[in-house]
Amino acid sequence: MRISELARVTGVPVATVKYYLRAGLVPPGRATGATQAQYDETHVQRLRLARALVQVGGLTVAAARDVLSAVDTAADGSLHDVLGAAHTGLPPRLEDEGEPARARSLARRLGWQVHPEAPSLAQLEHALRALDEVGAPADDERLGEYADAARRIAELDVSGVPTMSPDEAATTVVIGTVLWEPVLLALRRMAQEAVSAEHFAQP
Amino acid sequence: MRISELARVTGVPVATVKYYLRAGLVPPGRATGATQAQYDETHVQRLRLARALVQVGGLTVAAARDVLSAVDTAADGSLHDVLGAAHTGLPPRLEDEGEPARARSLARRLGWQVHPEAPSLAQLEHALRALDEVGAPADDERLGEYADAARRIAELDVSGVPTMSPDEAATTVVIGTVLWEPVLLALRRMAQEAVSAEHFAQP
Repeated sequence: MRISELARVTGVPVATVKYYLRAGLVPPGRATGATQAQYDETHVQRLRLARALVQVGGLTVAAARDVLSAVDTAADGSLHDVLGAAHTGLPPRLEDEGEPARARSLARRLGWQVHPEAPSLAQLEHALRALDEVGAPADDERLGEYADAARRIAELDVSGVPTMSPDEAATTVVIGTVLWEPVLLALRRMAQEAVSAEHFAQP
Repeated sequence: MRISELARVTGVPVATVKYYLRAGLVPPGRATGATQAQYDETHVQRLRLARALVQVGGLTVAAARDVLSAVDTAADGSLHDVLGAAHTGLPPRLEDEGEPARARSLARRLGWQVHPEAPSLAQLEHALRALDEVGAPADDERLGEYADAARRIAELDVSGVPTMSPDEAATTVVIGTVLWEPVLLALRRMAQEAVSAEHFAQP
């Protein structure tokens, strides 16, 4: 298909498609002339994913390109590598703040095999420090319950990754990480309201 | 205590303290002279909370002021009102995108009492639409499992809110909403890595 058709199918304006092509978020089409190229279903998929990362994930175009290229590179390795590449490329990226000692120790206690340099450990450490700073440090019981819930969700996430095609696996991992995070947060707030209504609402 | 002491105790630079005072994030101290004021423990708490909202929650100063003043106002009402004020004031704030029909219908199916205009419904609807757009629509089973996990977490969140002091309740709700979200997301990514290591890692 031509670029106008690619834009029509995905609902992405032609100008944005051209921008994403120039920025390397979407691979070039097959040149069919000096100013024309043909695109196929892989471009449709990639364009949708790129737009979702930018518009829903809130990634900058540069960050989205980094994630996609890290994931493309890792797609030759194991699914575990793809997941690592997605997590490393995705925000939030925190400034180096020293060793995530508490997060590592929690992972050990839970028996979770997490790479000592995984960005998720720094994210947790940062969040725990913020709780200290407001004088409301995380207690082990609540952390443990959160970890249980996170683990159940992660089992579901990982079991849903298709193992046959590395490309599809990569796409699924990126979608699962970026696009399901807002689902989880929205459901948590909805559930908080529902539980609070049951306990506290004045008639 | 004087402003220098307030800065020392909280670790917030004096210039930032002054900025937060001017912006209305922290209430004024008790004037003890033309250019001097006294601050107390309530200022320490509020300053820490304001900083956490801005630095960890990623709120703008204006958004943080809106949340804090909404919560202060609601603190005269029920805890349920405080929760509503916190959710309404906190990001993400989405453009109006039409009725969150699917999110409302999910809440009904779950038996969750959620206000039809609650921002969490719009957040969920937005996230579901993004999943549609990348060609990976949310299936009911996965949504249901996420909802179960969210509900368990929310029970814990709400049970931890102190019921004796409306001020403390408000603070706890804001902290629970903003500062525990990154904890949950970090734990989910850690768990994904751990589960993936068990299933897929190449030795």
